[in-house]
Amino acid sequence: RCHHPHTAMLDVPFLPFCAFLGTLGLLCVAMVGTWCQHWRGGFSLDGSSRTFNWHPVLMVTGLVVLYGAAALVYRIPNTWSGPKLPWKVLHGSLALGAFVLTVLGLAAVFRFHNSQGTPNMYSLHSWMGLGTVLLFSCQWAAGFGAFLLPWAPAWLRALYKPIHVFFGSTILMLSVASCASGINEKLFFSLKNGTMQYKLLPAEAVFANTLGLLILIFGVLVVAALARPSWKRPDSDSPDSRQVRDALGG
Amino acid sequence: RCHHPHTAMLDVPFLPFCAFLGTLGLLCVAMVGTWCQHWRGGFSLDGSSRTFNWHPVLMVTGLVVLYGAAALVYRIPNTWSGPKLPWKVLHGSLALGAFVLTVLGLAAVFRFHNSQGTPNMYSLHSWMGLGTVLLFSCQWAAGFGAFLLPWAPAWLRALYKPIHVFFGSTILMLSVASCASGINEKLFFSLKNGTMQYKLLPAEAVFANTLGLLILIFGVLVVAALARPSWKRPDSDSPDSRQVRDALGG
Repeated sequence: RCHHPHTAMLDVPFLPFCAFLGTLGLLCVAMVGTWCQHWRGGFSLDGSSRTFNWHPVLMVTGLVVLYGAAALVYRIPNTWSGPKLPWKVLHGSLALGAFVLTVLGLAAVFRFHNSQGTPNMYSLHSWMGLGTVLLFSCQWAAGFGAFLLPWAPAWLRALYKPIHVFFGSTILMLSVASCASGINEKLFFSLKNGTMQYKLLPAEAVFANTLGLLILIFGVLVVAALARPSWKRPDSDSPDSRQVRDALGG
Repeated sequence: RCHHPHTAMLDVPFLPFCAFLGTLGLLCVAMVGTWCQHWRGGFSLDGSSRTFNWHPVLMVTGLVVLYGAAALVYRIPNTWSGPKLPWKVLHGSLALGAFVLTVLGLAAVFRFHNSQGTPNMYSLHSWMGLGTVLLFSCQWAAGFGAFLLPWAPAWLRALYKPIHVFFGSTILMLSVASCASGINEKLFFSLKNGTMQYKLLPAEAVFANTLGLLILIFGVLVVAALARPSWKRPDSDSPDSRQVRDALGG
């Protein structure tokens, strides 16, 4: 490849960037676990707020970090040649793992609400979050049906692929936006008395606000990595590259 | 252009898509205004919650809708030939308008907090939001310095352009995430007594939750439009198209 020298300065290699993203993702998981363990009383399955605590941990782990890992599989240069099936299985399995954690995360908050007599699904956070999970379930099922089962004709795969790619990034954006609104809401619920009010910015608030910012940065970087043209598989059959080639007069 | 017939089915023309986006953006502005006027007591400059009401209206209008319009200027095919300067001035002016509304929106919430004795800048919403506005101010100043002032050398423009494009989409994603957390937080603040509790989902809650979802959809569609390869200017000097050409072996 021949880049303009100044542009080449911006060329980040994919694998070190991925290692950085992995570290950032693990940091987010560690921080959400620490928040719930250290400040919010830890974890249990008894329907109390300790049951609720599984909700942020499972959502950040599943719908943000593991989801991001699944989304980035096809940006690994090794996936660009040789048989596709093992990579498809890896992509689908990581996404399925993310989906299972997500459903368990939903179960945690529903169980908490039901045992406390709190209504479900009233806040904008819950609407965004459930909408995101519903989109994710459609995305997984349609991806499985179109790309892993052997029966979909090539024209259907070609038609659906850009839609799958578009919703891949969209679901992650909605997911990190849902996390941010959820952390914000949880801090208002939890920190409201005496010297522990959210507006007095105790240590827990600084910690969880920082977690929220790191989740947003993780999401933005994954979406940016997915959109970066030079990290996409140079697949001459993909509509994207065909459009670009047309646009370039190729 | 010669597209595969099934892919061509997904080819949305840019201008009708823009008309749809414009309608959606105006609907968001109308709805946030209606929310504040009809349910939250309207507008004033007296430091009360009626001063706060300018905050959501100015943020949605400036940092989401007008910002989105500014970001999409270079996707209009007319901008791809002829002199660039008028389009640069249009892009910069729309972004400056968005920035001015944004700063007024910040002034509204600071004035409200200060007159009520509420601390500023403690919630995750405020950290995200102010971070977004700070990024936007750097983005505008650097864009003005690099692309509108005549002194920047070509290599600096080429180096900075992909960074400017990346932060253009990033700021919009952060902006819609900030709006969602802000609407969620405001509804918890406002709806907490009697039959008007947020968890009982009164009409105001349904209306403002819907507004939040529409803002998210607007943001996702603008970011998707910005990322779509066939809607980008086929600029042979841009690093993006050069990277793609390299990736395609061109």
